[in-house]
Amino acid sequence: MSVTLEQVQAAIGKPQAPFTYTYTPRDVALYALGVGAPADPLDPDELKFVYELSGEGFAVLPSFAVIYISQTIHDILSGRIGDIEFNPMMLVHGEQSLVIKKPLPSAGTVTCHPVIADIFDKGSGMLVLNDVVCKDESGDELAVLRSSMFIRGMGDFGGERGTSDKSDAAPDRPPDATMTEQTSPKQALIYRLSGDVNPLHADPAMAAVGGFEKPILHGLSTFGYATRAVLKHFCDNDATRLTGIKARFSKHVFPGETLVTEMWRVADSAVIFQTKSVERDEVVLSYARATIS
Amino acid sequence: MSVTLEQVQAAIGKPQAPFTYTYTPRDVALYALGVGAPADPLDPDELKFVYELSGEGFAVLPSFAVIYISQTIHDILSGRIGDIEFNPMMLVHGEQSLVIKKPLPSAGTVTCHPVIADIFDKGSGMLVLNDVVCKDESGDELAVLRSSMFIRGMGDFGGERGTSDKSDAAPDRPPDATMTEQTSPKQALIYRLSGDVNPLHADPAMAAVGGFEKPILHGLSTFGYATRAVLKHFCDNDATRLTGIKARFSKHVFPGETLVTEMWRVADSAVIFQTKSVERDEVVLSYARATIS
Repeated sequence: MSVTLEQVQAAIGKPQAPFTYTYTPRDVALYALGVGAPADPLDPDELKFVYELSGEGFAVLPSFAVIYISQTIHDILSGRIGDIEFNPMMLVHGEQSLVIKKPLPSAGTVTCHPVIADIFDKGSGMLVLNDVVCKDESGDELAVLRSSMFIRGMGDFGGERGTSDKSDAAPDRPPDATMTEQTSPKQALIYRLSGDVNPLHADPAMAAVGGFEKPILHGLSTFGYATRAVLKHFCDNDATRLTGIKARFSKHVFPGETLVTEMWRVADSAVIFQTKSVERDEVVLSYARATIS
Repeated sequence: MSVTLEQVQAAIGKPQAPFTYTYTPRDVALYALGVGAPADPLDPDELKFVYELSGEGFAVLPSFAVIYISQTIHDILSGRIGDIEFNPMMLVHGEQSLVIKKPLPSAGTVTCHPVIADIFDKGSGMLVLNDVVCKDESGDELAVLRSSMFIRGMGDFGGERGTSDKSDAAPDRPPDATMTEQTSPKQALIYRLSGDVNPLHADPAMAAVGGFEKPILHGLSTFGYATRAVLKHFCDNDATRLTGIKARFSKHVFPGETLVTEMWRVADSAVIFQTKSVERDEVVLSYARATIS
């Protein structure tokens, strides 16, 4: 399969059909379990992310906003963006960012407005920036998300190369805080129930097709672990104090591995972080930043 | 609160309002995770209980039928059976049995017909037998369940004492098979998302009110672990070969403890089993039997 410059130009900026996502506290709690919460089931600081009657008040992890756009992920996994067709097995989730505009409710219906913001020609593949604005039932913006998707083998169509954003690299000094957590061997099986049912995360045979020795953890699950690390160390576990987060998925994680998130406070409202797989000493989330208050 | 013989006699045999339970493969998989499946995420034998695209075919654990009657558990937890009111904190789930009439579908709507089968006066409390017949969308019986509930402090109303069924005690010889598994410290937090959201299983403060040092695992989660043990050792993990299971909840389990299920083949179609907490050397499921084919 290949793509033409005309197809790319037609796709850019074209709003796609809005869709809705309806959820309950059960979905919020299941997501939190999928990203490792609570580290200690007896600690009210994180129990509140999974227990709707918590004395601390039930709280929604800000990274839950990525679940609002599961439909977009489904659509892209079908191998089509606008008129552009591709092999979904060639797709890699490159980066994810989100900005929280209003504390996420613990239940409700969210309306999501997706648009292809840009498409770049990286030679070896095509980089697609997919933006989604998510609104609550009163029409207020809840969250704005950008997913960058790299599709191998779909480059060289004569488009703009774009730049490579190397800001938010890990500073060359010891981190101000670190958080280490072992994931469960079943972590991907829990996380996938939040909506990303790509077989790559459950099926040994499909993982082999993808070139992995066994199923890999969802990058967005690791993203949630990192979100929890920032919340714990810089926001006193107050979910409303984290208003933005972005990261690059630089390497896969196998369920059961230990994640260490290293964090640097670089401004009153900014934390740069990176997450590593301890067992393989690989950086798995990089060029990552959180905005806090 | 107390109860009169007239109230008891009026409640016995009176059908209660039917209710429905609608579910999807996601609910089936979440339940399986709540009872510890899969022991090994890479082993197709149990992956099929949590992965809807499994090459082995998606399979429903027969003990999932207990989820059909979650509404009954909710109703009883509200502290009312017929006209009888009681303090729900005095309620203990005594025994559970289920008979599978037809392999459980991986999705659909089940209609449940509950009735109070009997109520006994045990002196120190009242023993209520609640029967539910569950039917599929074509009206066929899928499963028949009996839950026995003991309500402390509600005895001495002048009713029948009933007998104490000591059949299916563990034989006085070494078991034919055993299965040992450590539960997750988060096991109750996962299991509760299948519908039994009693705070006793999540909230340290509520557990203390119930006299426990910390939240306890759902007895029905342990019941699911035992079901998996029988399936593995006597049914080659073929979910359709287990057609009946019953057990008494003789002691609590704390999430994170190790469960060992000891099994004795007592007939071609019958396995007696018991489950223990290894750390406390306590029998937690007793007088337990599975019917297999």
